[in-house]
Amino acid sequence: MIYLDNSATTKPWKSVLETYTQVSEKYFANPSSLHPLGAEAERLLMQARKQTAELLKVAPEEVIFTSGATEGNNIAIQGAVNANKGRGRHIITTAIEHPSVLRTMNHLEERGFEVTYLFPDKEGRVKASQVAEKVRKDTILVSVMHVNNETGSIQPIKEIGKVLTNHSKVLFHVDNVQGIGKVPLNIKNAGIDLLTISGHKFHGVKGSGVLFAKRNINLVPLYFGGTQERALRAGTESTAGAAALAKALRMTLDREPENRNMKNRLEKLASELSKYNEIIINSPVLRAPHILNFSVIGRKPESIVSALAEKNIYVSTTSACSSKDSEESIVLKAMGLPEERTTSSLRISLSLDTTDKEISDFLKSWKEIYYEVLKVGG
Amino acid sequence: MIYLDNSATTKPWKSVLETYTQVSEKYFANPSSLHPLGAEAERLLMQARKQTAELLKVAPEEVIFTSGATEGNNIAIQGAVNANKGRGRHIITTAIEHPSVLRTMNHLEERGFEVTYLFPDKEGRVKASQVAEKVRKDTILVSVMHVNNETGSIQPIKEIGKVLTNHSKVLFHVDNVQGIGKVPLNIKNAGIDLLTISGHKFHGVKGSGVLFAKRNINLVPLYFGGTQERALRAGTESTAGAAALAKALRMTLDREPENRNMKNRLEKLASELSKYNEIIINSPVLRAPHILNFSVIGRKPESIVSALAEKNIYVSTTSACSSKDSEESIVLKAMGLPEERTTSSLRISLSLDTTDKEISDFLKSWKEIYYEVLKVGG
Repeated sequence: MIYLDNSATTKPWKSVLETYTQVSEKYFANPSSLHPLGAEAERLLMQARKQTAELLKVAPEEVIFTSGATEGNNIAIQGAVNANKGRGRHIITTAIEHPSVLRTMNHLEERGFEVTYLFPDKEGRVKASQVAEKVRKDTILVSVMHVNNETGSIQPIKEIGKVLTNHSKVLFHVDNVQGIGKVPLNIKNAGIDLLTISGHKFHGVKGSGVLFAKRNINLVPLYFGGTQERALRAGTESTAGAAALAKALRMTLDREPENRNMKNRLEKLASELSKYNEIIINSPVLRAPHILNFSVIGRKPESIVSALAEKNIYVSTTSACSSKDSEESIVLKAMGLPEERTTSSLRISLSLDTTDKEISDFLKSWKEIYYEVLKVGG
Repeated sequence: MIYLDNSATTKPWKSVLETYTQVSEKYFANPSSLHPLGAEAERLLMQARKQTAELLKVAPEEVIFTSGATEGNNIAIQGAVNANKGRGRHIITTAIEHPSVLRTMNHLEERGFEVTYLFPDKEGRVKASQVAEKVRKDTILVSVMHVNNETGSIQPIKEIGKVLTNHSKVLFHVDNVQGIGKVPLNIKNAGIDLLTISGHKFHGVKGSGVLFAKRNINLVPLYFGGTQERALRAGTESTAGAAALAKALRMTLDREPENRNMKNRLEKLASELSKYNEIIINSPVLRAPHILNFSVIGRKPESIVSALAEKNIYVSTTSACSSKDSEESIVLKAMGLPEERTTSSLRISLSLDTTDKEISDFLKSWKEIYYEVLKVGG
């Protein structure tokens, strides 16, 4: 099997699952229980929090364990605007965010907030100057993703953070789900207030995530109950999920030097695929090391996905969260690409474990299926 | 170790963890991915949904996988009132709900909803007639727990459901976290619209739960993103968490006949503990088979918890989610019990795996520590 859909989800590492199982068995008590078993679980949870904080270069109390990035993005965005709507009701985001941001924005528009969507250039990148132009006295939140999940384009987070230093009351949220471990980002230097990551995108378990929420930041929780996680995320903590996330994050960041190899593999894919007449690379040159998006003009991408799957190779057409909703990539459309490209795109996404052999095997299989698919048409 | 804090959380069963690990490894793909690996994960998720639905005697599409009961209760309550606030803003609940219900109600009061709290009798039980008295034209939701988490008292869910058949537009939500597998409840016969359970309370993994949401029911989601789980719970599904929950639920319900033994063990505890002059049983006679609440008059319960813990025996003072917030049990207070009882209570909660030997060992240790603690005073 050659799995090249790592932006949708990654295979959890064996040792991460072992941590999950061991912690589940040994530290099963409720961290809120007052007896020593509860205290032990609480201690382990704190250890996972400290480790995660160190890896993210933030303070332990700024790490909020969540059930994933959709929840994290919603706590951040809804929490921030509900806490600050007295000051204003204007939000700035981009037109290429993940559905968990875009649809939350749609919901907020229905509730009377005004949302400005920044459009990227042909390289899939917004400019910090666009934020500077659009920010107003009643702007309360700017939400910009770090790495786009469909194209791998990298947004100028640090530059946007700099623009916002002149607007100290505007909160800055970054969806870093595709960026973590792939493209370095110093949370504190970039002036970020809220940032989201998801465990299963870096070989952790599904149902685990972290919301970085700056100390003293005021958020209205999405839901209520116990006072776990600064009362921003009530409910019995998954000690095992937190420990597994911390471990997967450490292993991922330990292997950051290998991103260079990943990048080389992706470059090889890009240059080989570019040789086909009908293929146009959509990912910009300045891209994350793991995502390559390209269109096969005039062909239905689903038929290519199926043909590859028959050879045990797995790629995707668009993001998993959008895949069942639409035929057209709204990310590519927002970049201003023509319909022949927005409806014919494929995404290949690598992991740290993708090998050179898998890349050459992929290219071999690609060549085999390509002319068959072209012959059948789409 | 004698673990008698199973209402706070249970130890996950080995075979449940094995299911979790196997599914995590083998069906790791994103169920929303269009390729066959995604379809396989989706199929497994559907299998877990069907199995859960059969066990709960509801339809598969009525099973919404959540990250736990706090989230489930919040989606149900906030979702129901946000969807129906045009019709009215009155809610009925009880004064003895779990914090994930009570604090959500507090939040809704701040947002302009009116909440009527029903108080239980000395047996910890509200009456269906109280609901009948308080229900109004502008009532949109009734939320009553099935089994109380501190005393094990059983609420008359079926009778309340009957009252509400005359008020077809009032939604009926039941927090069944402590009831599932312990006290039978037929969701459909009781006229329930929304019901919550949590995996880790019946030997599943933490971070897993189910919200039963009746077909066609209209809820405003708490957060937005992909269209997973009827768009009521966006975010990449944890296939492994769902499969583990389904397995733990099946195993739990398969062992339902053993509840009689659990009940006998609890009766033995109650009758032995009653022999001590300073001990008063707070749990009513009509109680779930796993929870015994009692007060040791004039003694600080924390010192007893500590003394037992030194003998490797784990019990709790109050519910885990409330334990760090208050000295007094609001549940016992709502029952009208005097302060000497509301501030001196202990909770023992059994699981299916609690043995007769553990009960007699507990009673032996209790005897040993009891006079020491009494001597030291509290």
